[in-house]
Amino acid sequence: MSVITKTIQVKTKGEDDIIDITDQTSKGIEGSKMKNGVVTIFVSGSTAALTTIEYEPGLLSDFPKMLERVAPKNIDYGHEKLWHDGNGHSHVRASLVGPSLTVPFCNGQMMLGTWQQIVLLELDTRSRERNLVLQILGE
Amino acid sequence: MSVITKTIQVKTKGEDDIIDITDQTSKGIEGSKMKNGVVTIFVSGSTAALTTIEYEPGLLSDFPKMLERVAPKNIDYGHEKLWHDGNGHSHVRASLVGPSLTVPFCNGQMMLGTWQQIVLLELDTRSRERNLVLQILGE
Amino acid sequence: MSVITKTIQVKTKGEDDIIDITDQTSKGIEGSKMKNGVVTIFVSGSTAALTTIEYEPGLLSDFPKMLERVAPKNIDYGHEKLWHDGNGHSHVRASLVGPSLTVPFCNGQMMLGTWQQIVLLELDTRSRERNLVLQILGE
Repeated sequence: MSVITKTIQVKTKGEDDIIDITDQTSKGIEGSKMKNGVVTIFVSGSTAALTTIEYEPGLLSDFPKMLERVAPKNIDYGHEKLWHDGNGHSHVRASLVGPSLTVPFCNGQMMLGTWQQIVLLELDTRSRERNLVLQILGE
Repeated sequence: MSVITKTIQVKTKGEDDIIDITDQTSKGIEGSKMKNGVVTIFVSGSTAALTTIEYEPGLLSDFPKMLERVAPKNIDYGHEKLWHDGNGHSHVRASLVGPSLTVPFCNGQMMLGTWQQIVLLELDTRSRERNLVLQILGE
Repeated sequence: MSVITKTIQVKTKGEDDIIDITDQTSKGIEGSKMKNGVVTIFVSGSTAALTTIEYEPGLLSDFPKMLERVAPKNIDYGHEKLWHDGNGHSHVRASLVGPSLTVPFCNGQMMLGTWQQIVLLELDTRSRERNLVLQILGE
């Protein structure tokens, strides 16, 4: 067994941008030459998150609407007292969804469903350059 | 160190069915003969999720009620425009809770609390055959 | 590659206490002498959870307010019928956020953002002694 680290850079368009990173993750595993193991995908930063979703336009609007119900933009956030940058809701949403996702792979293929893609959620209020780490453990 | 893959098949009863998979996961670890490591449990598909909960009837109804507050069934979902199968809320809930759970084990035992069970959440609107992967890394 | 287990004990102050465990996690990795791998942090128990957040006072109040919106304290919980200990909302919140977090490290350093700390969320209604496991896999 060994560990191989790959990185992915993603330029996001701003709030509620949801980017499919499945292909880049698959290429990382392919490049590792490993057949069986897990990949941990991690986003550095506290206003972005990772999950899986069926990547189609309806859900790409449905999911942010759910986040707006649980952490609305236009309410007061204590975070504003520190930074005044209007992204308190972004932080709360990111902490709820989480920055880390671990996916098993077998015979070089991730065990995703046909309609299940890995996505980066941009939750900050502006375009960002996001750095993701793929930590691949296996053999 | 090595990697061993086990699979679990679960037939769910439909929406809001919550299935305790702790025993099957424990048996997978036992079968691997490993003593120390982690198991990553992953559900293929975008309308199911994994977490831990105290497995008792009260919470098995409390948890879906929370999901109904954050992603109600009877509101409009963009997802309906694609499939018309009435499970937009199922997708949103699954992406929020997440498809992956990693649990450490030591001396062959998962480090769960006494009142903490590993569960599969069926969030789709009908009975499904679910395929779970246990990816066990350790020694 | 190998596996090393470390434990962290944390005495929490009660509901909505959020404890920064980044330094203790870093020390665990340092003590393992590993340079590259992943650490899985896991909290035993069903009324606590783990995530990352920018650790500043505003967000430490904003995040519990979000949890109060999705799982309010003062509504009925089926869980009360079993235990009568007034923490149904604690369980629901803990299952939503989740008990496990996996973070990659490279050159001995976790790949966290500058403003991103690892936190234990105490969601129970009273002070607790929490036992966390750090399962470190790497080389």
